[in-house]
Amino acid sequence: MGEAGEDGRGAAALPRPVRLYDAARAPNPRRVRIFLAEKGITLPVRELAIMQGEHFAPEHMAKIGTHHVPALELADGTILTESVAICRYLEALTPEPPLMGRDPLEAAVIEMWQRRVEFQLFMPIGFVLRHGNPAMQVLERVQCPEWAEANRPRVLEGLNWLDRRLQTSPFIAGDEFSIADITGIVAIDFMRVIRQKIPEECSALAEWAERIHARPGCVA
Amino acid sequence: MGEAGEDGRGAAALPRPVRLYDAARAPNPRRVRIFLAEKGITLPVRELAIMQGEHFAPEHMAKIGTHHVPALELADGTILTESVAICRYLEALTPEPPLMGRDPLEAAVIEMWQRRVEFQLFMPIGFVLRHGNPAMQVLERVQCPEWAEANRPRVLEGLNWLDRRLQTSPFIAGDEFSIADITGIVAIDFMRVIRQKIPEECSALAEWAERIHARPGCVA
Repeated sequence: MGEAGEDGRGAAALPRPVRLYDAARAPNPRRVRIFLAEKGITLPVRELAIMQGEHFAPEHMAKIGTHHVPALELADGTILTESVAICRYLEALTPEPPLMGRDPLEAAVIEMWQRRVEFQLFMPIGFVLRHGNPAMQVLERVQCPEWAEANRPRVLEGLNWLDRRLQTSPFIAGDEFSIADITGIVAIDFMRVIRQKIPEECSALAEWAERIHARPGCVA
Repeated sequence: MGEAGEDGRGAAALPRPVRLYDAARAPNPRRVRIFLAEKGITLPVRELAIMQGEHFAPEHMAKIGTHHVPALELADGTILTESVAICRYLEALTPEPPLMGRDPLEAAVIEMWQRRVEFQLFMPIGFVLRHGNPAMQVLERVQCPEWAEANRPRVLEGLNWLDRRLQTSPFIAGDEFSIADITGIVAIDFMRVIRQKIPEECSALAEWAERIHARPGCVA
């Protein structure tokens, strides 16, 4: 994918990001923060107190058009939400180091793994928290405790699935660090809120997590 | 994104798709079939009888590496799964007509809307079906009927949300037909399995659905 928009606007003509709407403790914003750190990009940040419902405040909703966090404001007024869409735009503006593939085949393989990690690990963890913890009712109006319970074993399945993958691949999507590893490490670190650890038998996963944690970008 | 991989492999050097692993009645494969039809691409298809569990058969799993459908086999042996990753690869090989954006900003806005439709409509419909219908246990081993019930009102919320969007935009992601509309129409049509119709008050959504159904690609 490399340089942006050769038959559309070139990267230089694309609106620059001017502000990230962030929430320090939530997992999706952290995906974007790590992506930014790995790219060496710094941005003005507007922190939202989501546990106080600040992302639902009328003035915020009027500006952003949704309560979703993170959101990226661009110089032309465009608001982007959805972490992966935000990351793909940043990748086009700042292609190096590539985190979403250097050509369409790499990009497709990375997107495939990124989504697998989302569906098989990231989302089950979120369901256990949001439907199993009464304090989360501010974020999940109608909680379904049975769904939280149903997802506990799915988290374990997801961890074992990812461990098997990492037994034969240095990074989640292949030989290089990518956005799939970002989604993976954010999911793994977020497991503290559901008191889940990497199972002892998942040694390839534990070794991978140690390597990812050692990256400077991972402090984000 | 236009021509593929100017600093990686050019489109001509990328492995061609040789076979689509399909399941006629499932919604995710239909997303890819409509995408192919809109691009004017035809591919050999291997149909899988998922209600008989054919996608879990050992010989199939050994080849594909997962039970997920759809899957795209490439000439170099690569197997791609995840509908959106498959579509993005096809978009790079066959850029016209563009369905995922002509430049990085269009691409980000389309990806944002595509994901919103997935999370706010497509997935709630799937949860109602897979957790609420005992016949679906072949696909969803551990069903959670409470989760099916919790998603009924989310489907209605999603329909009303999409209707509001389409009151001010001709297509879901903006002025042109895109992959976001494909995800949207597949979700809407799939509602028959949960006996949900477009509510009468959602006239913008109904008008949009009629326009999308009139497209030749939508028969897929």
